[in-house]
Amino acid sequence: MNYCSQCGSRVEWRIPQGDTLPRHVCPSCGTIHYQNPKIVVGCIPEFEGRVLLCRRGIEPGYGKWTLPAGFMENSESADAGAARETLEEALARVEVGPLYAFYNLPSLSQVYLLFRGRLVEERYGAGDETLEAALFAEKEIPWDEIAFTVVRETLMHYFEEQRSGAFRFHFATI
Amino acid sequence: MNYCSQCGSRVEWRIPQGDTLPRHVCPSCGTIHYQNPKIVVGCIPEFEGRVLLCRRGIEPGYGKWTLPAGFMENSESADAGAARETLEEALARVEVGPLYAFYNLPSLSQVYLLFRGRLVEERYGAGDETLEAALFAEKEIPWDEIAFTVVRETLMHYFEEQRSGAFRFHFATI
Repeated sequence: MNYCSQCGSRVEWRIPQGDTLPRHVCPSCGTIHYQNPKIVVGCIPEFEGRVLLCRRGIEPGYGKWTLPAGFMENSESADAGAARETLEEALARVEVGPLYAFYNLPSLSQVYLLFRGRLVEERYGAGDETLEAALFAEKEIPWDEIAFTVVRETLMHYFEEQRSGAFRFHFATI
Repeated sequence: MNYCSQCGSRVEWRIPQGDTLPRHVCPSCGTIHYQNPKIVVGCIPEFEGRVLLCRRGIEPGYGKWTLPAGFMENSESADAGAARETLEEALARVEVGPLYAFYNLPSLSQVYLLFRGRLVEERYGAGDETLEAALFAEKEIPWDEIAFTVVRETLMHYFEEQRSGAFRFHFATI
């Protein structure tokens, strides 16, 4: 950040009065520009025991497999965002279930939220940022070609718990 | 947002190519300025069955009681943020426990996360944004003077479940 988005002046990087951390501060209009973590919301879309994955058509992780997920938008709820991302990336409609995994990614200033979900019908496809989408049973998962650690971890927990039917909530910092 | 924080040019409000929502876009340097929900992290600090509340010294809700909570910072985890806010607002050290409540507040573009916590000692006080801090048993809670709906809801669930000792995770959109 170089300029104030309110008035267009050059910003300074300093600790505002009464604060403890440096921020981008506008010396002209006084606006303090806070920067905060972003939320990634996604879904584990299940259909008859199999999970829908997307092969990524964009970086990072081009060509690798992931769960449908993306940045949560203003004015939406996290679960609605998870359904939206599943529709956008995998052209699939889901009933979103409970929150399944919460990952802090402080090195990226992100929080990653994955919900359980059920495909409402066996219809899916490749959205604009996806090369292909496919349903995988546990033994079919391309474990060495999963794009992100949080997705691999989540899938491992998910299939392990699927056997017993007792899903529990996962919270971790990576 | 009026000006590009990268190059200082006037921004336009339009749907970028390949996107579905309008964004602030810089016609000069091409930067797309995404705006995303913010995360509020807080704690339910318990000490021998009582819960620590803060009387707010700032708006909104000046003079009303709340749980210690505030905006999560970049490069921190949600649970670390909850501990930091408890220290800043109530001058109290907590061991942060499990995530207890997750509230979507789409009208404010916020997500509100409250963790269970245990005061490590009976020491607390008023931080810069707090008029006073105090421990309350269920029957002492000033129900008509609680600052926010999410806090009132959370305290009601918490004390109800405290009786049985069986705490469960709450997820809701308000």
